[in-house]
Amino acid sequence: MTRIAAIIGGGVIGAGWAARFALMGWEVRVFDPDPDAERKIAEVMTNAARVLPMLYEAPMPRRGAITCVTTLAEAVSGAEWIQESVPERRDLKHRVIAEIQATCPGDAVLASSTSGFKPSELQQGAARPSQIMVAHPFNPVYLLPLVELVPSAASDADIIARARQILTEIGMYPLHVRAEIDAHIADRLLEAVWREALWLVRDGIATTEEIDNAIRYGFGLRWAQMGLFETYRVAGGEAGMRHFLAQFGPCLQWPWTRLTDVPEFTDALVDLIADQSDAQSGHLGIRDLERLRDDNLVAILRALKQQGAAAGKLILDHDIALRGPLRDEAPLVTVRRVVPVDWTDINGHMNEGRYGQVFSDASEELMTHIGADRAYVAAGHSYFTAETTIKYLAETHAGETITVTTRVTAGQGRKLRLWHEMHRAADGAVLATCNQFLLHVSLETRRSCPPLPHVAEAVERLAAAHAAAD
Amino acid sequence: MTRIAAIIGGGVIGAGWAARFALMGWEVRVFDPDPDAERKIAEVMTNAARVLPMLYEAPMPRRGAITCVTTLAEAVSGAEWIQESVPERRDLKHRVIAEIQATCPGDAVLASSTSGFKPSELQQGAARPSQIMVAHPFNPVYLLPLVELVPSAASDADIIARARQILTEIGMYPLHVRAEIDAHIADRLLEAVWREALWLVRDGIATTEEIDNAIRYGFGLRWAQMGLFETYRVAGGEAGMRHFLAQFGPCLQWPWTRLTDVPEFTDALVDLIADQSDAQSGHLGIRDLERLRDDNLVAILRALKQQGAAAGKLILDHDIALRGPLRDEAPLVTVRRVVPVDWTDINGHMNEGRYGQVFSDASEELMTHIGADRAYVAAGHSYFTAETTIKYLAETHAGETITVTTRVTAGQGRKLRLWHEMHRAADGAVLATCNQFLLHVSLETRRSCPPLPHVAEAVERLAAAHAAAD
Repeated sequence: MTRIAAIIGGGVIGAGWAARFALMGWEVRVFDPDPDAERKIAEVMTNAARVLPMLYEAPMPRRGAITCVTTLAEAVSGAEWIQESVPERRDLKHRVIAEIQATCPGDAVLASSTSGFKPSELQQGAARPSQIMVAHPFNPVYLLPLVELVPSAASDADIIARARQILTEIGMYPLHVRAEIDAHIADRLLEAVWREALWLVRDGIATTEEIDNAIRYGFGLRWAQMGLFETYRVAGGEAGMRHFLAQFGPCLQWPWTRLTDVPEFTDALVDLIADQSDAQSGHLGIRDLERLRDDNLVAILRALKQQGAAAGKLILDHDIALRGPLRDEAPLVTVRRVVPVDWTDINGHMNEGRYGQVFSDASEELMTHIGADRAYVAAGHSYFTAETTIKYLAETHAGETITVTTRVTAGQGRKLRLWHEMHRAADGAVLATCNQFLLHVSLETRRSCPPLPHVAEAVERLAAAHAAAD
Repeated sequence: MTRIAAIIGGGVIGAGWAARFALMGWEVRVFDPDPDAERKIAEVMTNAARVLPMLYEAPMPRRGAITCVTTLAEAVSGAEWIQESVPERRDLKHRVIAEIQATCPGDAVLASSTSGFKPSELQQGAARPSQIMVAHPFNPVYLLPLVELVPSAASDADIIARARQILTEIGMYPLHVRAEIDAHIADRLLEAVWREALWLVRDGIATTEEIDNAIRYGFGLRWAQMGLFETYRVAGGEAGMRHFLAQFGPCLQWPWTRLTDVPEFTDALVDLIADQSDAQSGHLGIRDLERLRDDNLVAILRALKQQGAAAGKLILDHDIALRGPLRDEAPLVTVRRVVPVDWTDINGHMNEGRYGQVFSDASEELMTHIGADRAYVAAGHSYFTAETTIKYLAETHAGETITVTTRVTAGQGRKLRLWHEMHRAADGAVLATCNQFLLHVSLETRRSCPPLPHVAEAVERLAAAHAAAD
């Protein structure tokens, strides 16, 4: 059965909602009087359709259509979810909500994207207040899971429950905000940082870029996985949250920020926070939490490294600085590394795909050694792997150091054959072998062709040396 | 030549410094009168040695020794870098710095980990103020790259330059803070959030866990890769930073937070921020920035998914919900997915290792289908891959939809042979084939053994059906 979502207001936020619903199989109807709305929605949908499916290993639902309709009534007719994302003016929102309720199904979820208004404010004067709540998402709506779901006392419990269910079904996390306040939760925190950041820029202490670097190379990485309180719990070490509070509580009274109206640091407040932190994380010891934090940070940093972005770019540069040229021995030692935590699978050992990656890294090292390096690739030449046979001889686990030795077993013209052996560094045990057959290609034609002379000579030299050492 | 780092104060921060220096090949001497210091440092070093090398594909330097010494003079003698991480009391820091300078080399970097004091405060009454600066790191010091490097006007330019160089060499990012203020930059932002979070908890609006979720499922993910201002620049859309400021500037005057002493939102401030943002990101169009942001978010979310942590856990659960049982056809369609951005390599196409991962995922789907599912693995049985031969027939790229068809070509006793074909969904072209040989194992003995009857029967049934359809 087709499920229908009505999107009222097709700006960046409304379009993000539209894209997420459509990619999760809903039929989407958008109403926005802006003549540019259709183009803007199509642009957001292009972005979303490129990346949202990348999050999943599972097949995606059949994509729903997004239709821009010319009347609000047409949009909301038969809709199960109605999302209001018009500009942040209370009178406008009241008008739009009245028009929605004039024709929409009485049991539909009617949610507002407002970042500031309380649901009870939106419900004022409404025909059916019980249907209305806040569902405040975060940009980009098609990737970030958080939705602050804020009902008021007048909101209907069944509709709230249905809203939570639907948000979960489209891959979001409904954070049920139990007490309505201006700006809900996240935007209060954002507002506090924003204000402090503006002071720093205004006073000439730091530029926008320096402030961004202070965030993304430091606490931003912690917050992406644990947030504020659990991070501090870990920082408190063996003594836990109470110790952290005792140590850092007094700083609240210091003139560290421009604004020093602070909550009084009473025993009752310490108890409240420490008890909540215990309820949240107390089932895990401090060593477990440290391990979780560190594994997550490694995984995030390695993901950013693969993208060559943010803190990952720093590590990529450092990695290059740490790397020396290969020693010209037979066989070549092409890889020496630790197995990272993001390489293990359900069986608790290194996933078989990662063996292929290690051998691919080994041949890339060999490429640099024979002169088929990044500059050579940039100039339009490369070797592509045509066939590999991998034998898996022993398991290996995160944290173990492995090495790969590589021999050129055949190298004539456009053909290159390598024999890799992966060893456990601790005892030299052979973990896997790889027989790899590569073809030299032109990156322009994507077809095979002979390598340039200096590479051809290096291959022949290695083939001879490795055959002699056999 | 051995390079020596002296760590004065071996708490969580000092121990983190010690671990990072040692893992980057420095000899480390720690002075801390706490009798428990040696144990605590060893614990931090165990954590650090497990994870820091996982960030690198390159071989790590030969690890340096960490020695706990009994006098401060012994620690600093011959040291090139001296890091003071004693408790945050100014009188104590003055005493320790005086003792350090009584014996340390005159050209060593003498850096304080202080999160609050200005370098000029630490320099007061010092024998050689020019040697002293702040190098404020973030926990865990062995993983997070950020160091706020804060000199005063009295600091020596050569020593500052050397400090930046050394921090880069040990894999950190020295953020040179040009104007000294209490708490530098990052902790002012952290303090603002902390204070606001305490109000939220105290007023009963949200628990510590709800606040953490509001961060890690939402803006924490944005900040891990772009920080605050570049994120808002992207949110401004085509109209850019000035548009964003015009739209959200007025919110500063709204009563969204408990503290409303805010900078005046003058034209001069708007110009300052917009110009700095142009200098930072103006070389990239808004579509480029959106793409960078989305690619980074996909990579971070997928990394967390692999860890089963934070926002990645949500996606993992959703992935399972999206997944239906395989249709019992011949061949089986075991994979249907989009190639994500974190799977491409220097040649711009899917890395050969990821082909192996896709085929591994295909066989895992088949496992579920034959009853060798997560519960079967949890009960101590599994199939391990013994050998794969992959033929790479055509390139594939991020964003393309691929499918894998799988046939059981042999299944008798403990042996299982699968034939996978990877197709491009758009035109059905065969991208790669995989001949995969697996052995059934006991996870207790890690040796091969026959599968349980229901699995053996399912394998035989599929082998017969797939042979018939051949």
